[in-house]
Amino acid sequence: MVRAQWVLTVDAADSILDDGAVAMRNGVITAVGPAEEVIAAARAEDPDVVVEVLDGHALIPGLVNSHTHLAMTMFRGYADDRDLQAFLDVVVPAEVRVLDADRVGSATRAAAVESLLAGVTTALDMYFFLDSCRAAASEVGLRLQTGPIFLDGPGPEGWSWEERLADADKWLSNNPATPGWRPVLSPHSTYSVAPGHLAEVADLAAQHDAIVHLHASENLGEIELVAALHGRRPLEVLADVGLLREGTILAHAVHLTDSEIAEVARTGTAIAHCPASNLKLASGVARIPELVAAGASVGIGTDGPASSNDLDLFAALRLTALLHKGAGATGSGAGAATLPAVQVLRMATFGGAVAVGLADSIGSLEVGKRADLVAVDLDRPHTQPVYDPASALVYAAGRSDVRHVWAEGRAVVRNGQITTVDTTEVLNELRELRRIVLEG
Amino acid sequence: MVRAQWVLTVDAADSILDDGAVAMRNGVITAVGPAEEVIAAARAEDPDVVVEVLDGHALIPGLVNSHTHLAMTMFRGYADDRDLQAFLDVVVPAEVRVLDADRVGSATRAAAVESLLAGVTTALDMYFFLDSCRAAASEVGLRLQTGPIFLDGPGPEGWSWEERLADADKWLSNNPATPGWRPVLSPHSTYSVAPGHLAEVADLAAQHDAIVHLHASENLGEIELVAALHGRRPLEVLADVGLLREGTILAHAVHLTDSEIAEVARTGTAIAHCPASNLKLASGVARIPELVAAGASVGIGTDGPASSNDLDLFAALRLTALLHKGAGATGSGAGAATLPAVQVLRMATFGGAVAVGLADSIGSLEVGKRADLVAVDLDRPHTQPVYDPASALVYAAGRSDVRHVWAEGRAVVRNGQITTVDTTEVLNELRELRRIVLEG
Repeated sequence: MVRAQWVLTVDAADSILDDGAVAMRNGVITAVGPAEEVIAAARAEDPDVVVEVLDGHALIPGLVNSHTHLAMTMFRGYADDRDLQAFLDVVVPAEVRVLDADRVGSATRAAAVESLLAGVTTALDMYFFLDSCRAAASEVGLRLQTGPIFLDGPGPEGWSWEERLADADKWLSNNPATPGWRPVLSPHSTYSVAPGHLAEVADLAAQHDAIVHLHASENLGEIELVAALHGRRPLEVLADVGLLREGTILAHAVHLTDSEIAEVARTGTAIAHCPASNLKLASGVARIPELVAAGASVGIGTDGPASSNDLDLFAALRLTALLHKGAGATGSGAGAATLPAVQVLRMATFGGAVAVGLADSIGSLEVGKRADLVAVDLDRPHTQPVYDPASALVYAAGRSDVRHVWAEGRAVVRNGQITTVDTTEVLNELRELRRIVLEG
Repeated sequence: MVRAQWVLTVDAADSILDDGAVAMRNGVITAVGPAEEVIAAARAEDPDVVVEVLDGHALIPGLVNSHTHLAMTMFRGYADDRDLQAFLDVVVPAEVRVLDADRVGSATRAAAVESLLAGVTTALDMYFFLDSCRAAASEVGLRLQTGPIFLDGPGPEGWSWEERLADADKWLSNNPATPGWRPVLSPHSTYSVAPGHLAEVADLAAQHDAIVHLHASENLGEIELVAALHGRRPLEVLADVGLLREGTILAHAVHLTDSEIAEVARTGTAIAHCPASNLKLASGVARIPELVAAGASVGIGTDGPASSNDLDLFAALRLTALLHKGAGATGSGAGAATLPAVQVLRMATFGGAVAVGLADSIGSLEVGKRADLVAVDLDRPHTQPVYDPASALVYAAGRSDVRHVWAEGRAVVRNGQITTVDTTEVLNELRELRRIVLEG
């Protein structure tokens, strides 16, 4: 049982409780409401119930990182200040050179630590050696939505398409959906997976209740390449193979036409907005206000830490709140009310839950949901005074104000320290990965 | 004497020392160089010299916040998600209602604490009750560039123009420039101070070696208003009164024409770039790459914490590095090399020093400069591995990684804690200011 000065539930009404409490049992939220009521009800059942009191703190749902490549932490800062193609020209050969299951596991473990310390309890990941990724995330306590990657080429595994598909089918049979987790199929993009293969992935996803996660319309180079390969735009390819639908999440989606925005919204396709990566690679500014106005599902992601360069969803949500007010502004001031604080906080929590296929189990503080909670200390020189806790969270607080994190009810961060693994060891592994990348 | 894994000197060559040291005495830097050399030289003079060793840390010059209104901390989050005019419509009446010397002092003290904890050792401030502001900053240890505000209207003091000018003249006589400090004259803007009065301010500045600090070309409303009042653009007014010159700093400068950019660069006029505030108020995106290409002096500012909403220059410099790569991008990837990490770090330190009129005394780690140093811990799960310390500082580190800060050689932040004032008291004062603002 946690009692906090503010509880931002992110329920359908975006209810904010002053002096609220959240009770949890067996990893599930069992009560949310005014502190006095929730505590009285709990005491009636168990007079010895322990109440943790967090004055000056806001309790929020765990943040959802809606698009990332966690293991790329090993390449953080390895290829800055260049566009996507120049970035890939440096990073992909390095990946080919050094990736193996152990190294990917080390990097993912470190990324999971970074994520939880920043209040991120769920990440939608796309990377190779996915069993290493899952094991590492599980060890640390991060909810990792992931699954097989699909490429037409051999990839680091050296597989044919048939081998890849067979392996994915087997993996899906061994890893069925569980409460709070669904498998993910990750065809890389419409330029690296042929339309016929994408249709096979769509079929496989339908058989296994998996979501589909891919890069789409990130920059003009991609759009030109897809036009040259298939004579269509990326979203037209996806529509043709039945992948514009609920259960598909498009990472980036920077360059959408008006009719594509309407189609994304109509079909229930989700978008992972990655503002820092899109700026850093000069991909552009996604049309998020238009997508939101059309009714599309939008979550927020960091992208991989080689291109953005951290896993700080507080920074990403603040950037989302700022960027779309002013990036295209004429200077008249129109746009200043775009994406206000409450809406952006929703996007980074419940919006992410919808986008990664877990709307029923995470993303808000409501009875029956998995107990993913973050306590943010707003009693700091950079956050006080607090007129509005949502404003303080979005426009003033940051990852370093995360004091406690519960993932499935387990306290994985306590007083700003990870409880599940040894941070010193994690840092040693990151330094060792640097040595391998530079020398390997 | 401080020895660190990396010393980013921000000297003319942007030298970065691996295993460097900085010695200081009487508030001044006395040596900078490879650790072994600097330590051997110091030991030859004094065998008992104490060396503080900071493995995994980067030592950088204190950050310079080139435009702010520190005391507006009391209004942090009080008027979000609205444009400049709507923001002023809420905030200005609140200011009129509550401002007094004590309250401004309390708010500035809190803001100085926030600034130093975030690695900001110098701020160019514009606010009323400036002696309160100076006393509070001095108590905490922040270098506050400030001085009299000029408005045609009576302001909170209820003064005529003649009274204001006479008071400023007297204040300047009592507060002459000292090593590491110069007085500042702050005519608010070209719409709130008439051209004839601006000319008088320019004369006064020349008499007292003061810099001139004003808002200019922040948004289209201002440009239209100045056109209606004076038949000219804000920078034309300033050129006519002799204020486009070295020693003038223009806050925001979002809407500049090509010829204005050329004129700013030619005359040595400085710009304070405030990217977060400009986005949040939908003012637009300043043409920083063009200004830099033209050779203009550019520093980075947060603006006041009512409009941005914190004093986090790490966030502002990262936003600067990201925004100008991608905000106007067509999606071709062109722009990804704009404002690389080293250049932005320079803008937030030496660029700021030039902009606030202290190029000779702060902004870089060089012998003879004031000893304003910041030790940033890069041995963190969100910063490791470190391939390039400048990249880690700009794209991954943040205010919470600031471990130690020396201001004029005095350790004002130790292990992330302010040493000069009681943080609990500061937080109590901020809560009390909230009560006053809401009830006052």
